[in-house]
Amino acid sequence: MSRPGGRPRRAASAVRQLPFQSLVNRYAPIEILSSDQVDAIIAAAFSILENQGMRFLEASSRRLLQAAGAQVDEATMQVRFDRALVLEKLALAPPEFRLRARNSAHDLVIGGNNLVFCAVGGPAFCSDLDRGRRAGTHAEVCDFLRLVQSLNIIHQESGGPFEAMDLPPETRHLDLYLAQLTLLDKNCQANGLGRMRTADCIEMNRIALGVKPEALSQDALVMAIVNTNSPMQLDIPMTEAVIELAGNGQACCITPFTLAGSMSPVTLAGTLAQQTAEVLAVATLAQTVRAGARIIYGSFASNVDMRSGAPALGTPEYSKAALASGQIARRLKLPLRSSNTTSSNCVDAQSAYESSMSLWGAIMGHANLVYHAAGWLESGLTASFEKLITDAEMLQMMAEFLRPIAVNEDELALAAIAEVAPGGHHFGTAHTLAHYETAFYEPLLSTRQNFETWQEAGSQDAAQRANRIWKQLLADYQQPTIDPAIHEELADYVARRKQAIVAGAA
Amino acid sequence: MSRPGGRPRRAASAVRQLPFQSLVNRYAPIEILSSDQVDAIIAAAFSILENQGMRFLEASSRRLLQAAGAQVDEATMQVRFDRALVLEKLALAPPEFRLRARNSAHDLVIGGNNLVFCAVGGPAFCSDLDRGRRAGTHAEVCDFLRLVQSLNIIHQESGGPFEAMDLPPETRHLDLYLAQLTLLDKNCQANGLGRMRTADCIEMNRIALGVKPEALSQDALVMAIVNTNSPMQLDIPMTEAVIELAGNGQACCITPFTLAGSMSPVTLAGTLAQQTAEVLAVATLAQTVRAGARIIYGSFASNVDMRSGAPALGTPEYSKAALASGQIARRLKLPLRSSNTTSSNCVDAQSAYESSMSLWGAIMGHANLVYHAAGWLESGLTASFEKLITDAEMLQMMAEFLRPIAVNEDELALAAIAEVAPGGHHFGTAHTLAHYETAFYEPLLSTRQNFETWQEAGSQDAAQRANRIWKQLLADYQQPTIDPAIHEELADYVARRKQAIVAGAA
Repeated sequence: MSRPGGRPRRAASAVRQLPFQSLVNRYAPIEILSSDQVDAIIAAAFSILENQGMRFLEASSRRLLQAAGAQVDEATMQVRFDRALVLEKLALAPPEFRLRARNSAHDLVIGGNNLVFCAVGGPAFCSDLDRGRRAGTHAEVCDFLRLVQSLNIIHQESGGPFEAMDLPPETRHLDLYLAQLTLLDKNCQANGLGRMRTADCIEMNRIALGVKPEALSQDALVMAIVNTNSPMQLDIPMTEAVIELAGNGQACCITPFTLAGSMSPVTLAGTLAQQTAEVLAVATLAQTVRAGARIIYGSFASNVDMRSGAPALGTPEYSKAALASGQIARRLKLPLRSSNTTSSNCVDAQSAYESSMSLWGAIMGHANLVYHAAGWLESGLTASFEKLITDAEMLQMMAEFLRPIAVNEDELALAAIAEVAPGGHHFGTAHTLAHYETAFYEPLLSTRQNFETWQEAGSQDAAQRANRIWKQLLADYQQPTIDPAIHEELADYVARRKQAIVAGAA
Repeated sequence: MSRPGGRPRRAASAVRQLPFQSLVNRYAPIEILSSDQVDAIIAAAFSILENQGMRFLEASSRRLLQAAGAQVDEATMQVRFDRALVLEKLALAPPEFRLRARNSAHDLVIGGNNLVFCAVGGPAFCSDLDRGRRAGTHAEVCDFLRLVQSLNIIHQESGGPFEAMDLPPETRHLDLYLAQLTLLDKNCQANGLGRMRTADCIEMNRIALGVKPEALSQDALVMAIVNTNSPMQLDIPMTEAVIELAGNGQACCITPFTLAGSMSPVTLAGTLAQQTAEVLAVATLAQTVRAGARIIYGSFASNVDMRSGAPALGTPEYSKAALASGQIARRLKLPLRSSNTTSSNCVDAQSAYESSMSLWGAIMGHANLVYHAAGWLESGLTASFEKLITDAEMLQMMAEFLRPIAVNEDELALAAIAEVAPGGHHFGTAHTLAHYETAFYEPLLSTRQNFETWQEAGSQDAAQRANRIWKQLLADYQQPTIDPAIHEELADYVARRKQAIVAGAA
């Protein structure tokens, strides 16, 4: 009983969820800055770049920027940029680009009105209701990856959900990449800490997708988050990632880490100006490495708690900064990245209302990429198996919210309205029967049981139900197929690289 | 260290919260319908009113409408309306009006870009973490009212948070009104079930505010929710409330109860058309009773769960219907009412993400009144003491979200940015010291404790912390003053009316 404009049908499975789908945000963004205010913030960013500049700790990047026309002070490692140079380089950045996946049905478009949800990346710990918060293992990382593959609403893997503490740190990234490329067929991010970690990811994706070396830069296969050391500094590993990614046609998501009051001014306007300056400085480097480098304007602006100095996430300030960053990114013609964040330490009401604040800011700010969209807890220190599910539900709800209301004769339903007696009901009308299977969003996690039924079933809250769902998804998980020759080539690469790293020839 | 445009300072108290404040939504609403789609929905509503009409069960309302020019079929009690009649009556409704409170600092403006948060109203049960879900008592109603008075972010009381099952139903409303008018000095809604319940509220508010009978209609003192029996019917008690309220210059919030798939068509466009038709029919009655009657376009459109027939609240559909209703209400030049809803049975992540969906739809749809803004649980069957607090936190966050970002030289903070070394921090700058006390939202409930500190403090989730907060607020509660003569007059009125009701002369 499908209908034009209707939602795609669900696949049969023990856990009912929406199908994998490309999301497009057709609603106008919320604009909380005036056009003059956007101008003033961008002008302030240029002023910072001209008068103060940014410190680049990596030497070759300073040479590249100097050759491109920036003013470099080698003693302080400060690089100053004329706005003409920045604007010239900025104009080279594509407003939209494709990110390929091992399964081409999972290819992503970054930019325009497209919206991509990426799982949580980078925490130190993992947690679930059964075993609590703990250091994670590679086996647990693999389980998390299986869930990211299984949850259709998640478009992209994040470059590792948490650290596998049972593996040696110097080769851990290789095990991660092999797991990404065999347990998922979605696009997976790189762990962009340094040149070799980035290069290994690019090479393994090249192998997995069967791309010839000379064709590598045609489409991006790999994206990595490039965090600045705010304020106004880029460290050596991140600079190496920029050079490696941009140089090979891969994508950089340039994200200053600006918590207002600590790594940036205590005011939002100042924080947005500094964030923009840092993005533009790194963007200029990326375009200098390779004209047309695929880059994203990343916003992570939030604030610290001024009583404790702790990060405050999922705040009203976070939401406002996301919307304002969208306005700035659109003015600069760059895709936008935002996030789904919370400071809560457990999967409770706080974790949900802070995630909601973040998501509404991100989505109505027309973020093209929502990083940490599912699974983030505890200000980003922990990846939670239950939060992955509560967030997936929220993401599905936002996806449904983004489906516009259809208004036509059938949807206006005047005949059905005339058919039902005053005070009657619509349960049995032909119109209801024709529409009910696809009319409304069917939740993944939420219950509409009445109190008594819910109580008889054990009074399970959302976190407890999420626990049941991720276990069911793991039980149902089906590994995507891979050409055995490619699998072998990947395994050989990992073995060879591990040997080289252990031998000190990394 | 206050500053221009800064937030008002907080009063000293054991629970830190924002001060009472009038809220104005300066952001443009989210518009998810095209102008043509709004036209089509309103045209469909007129078509329903012309061809099918609405059933008015109360006889005098049919006589009034017939005299005004509507077509009445006494056999079926159906009243049909020409669109010219509806438009003529609609033009009489004020787009904005004042609702007075016993404390004039708590007066409300309904309409324009003003935003009013009203507590939960109408549930059958109450609940808290200590005693669970249960039938409530008058003493518990009074505690809830004390909390509504104490929580500054709540502007209005709801006409009773839940039923006081230890009081006789026929006089219960009088005890409620006396409690409202002595425990709070905020505006309190009427329990608009029938003529006498409504009239008692108006008279007691008139006494409490010292308004002369002949001046009663100058400003509204009382508002009540008028629910239709969707589809397309208005029952006798609600009709009596409309006549009593409109006739005395008081306010009607006309709210169809349209759950798509049950009380309205299974489609959102049809549900919005029916909702609009029902509002316009009752609006026409109100304006016929008294030209210029103060009315609100109420939207409660959501959907049923098509698997169980249960109400589904805080859904993506709810959020879209709220935004669309805002567009329709603005076209009709009526203030808008929406709500904060959830189907969850406990104060968990679901209760928060569903409330968030509702609140973002309501607020970005430019609702002027958010009913059930705090305390609603279990599809409206229960008023929760802990949900009152989690919602108050969410409302405070939305209030902060609505404070626009200031962009000026001080806020752009270029001097502070220049002062801090690359990779340094802003904790000690003069700019930070000048701003930190008022720069960021300080939560009522949320924690930013790190995991270890939080764990040592008992690993309390948001619901457990909310339990502690409402008890502290009750301990700190201070009853607003009232003139003893007025208090006595109110008590006398209640005693006299109870006697009359018990004697059967109600």
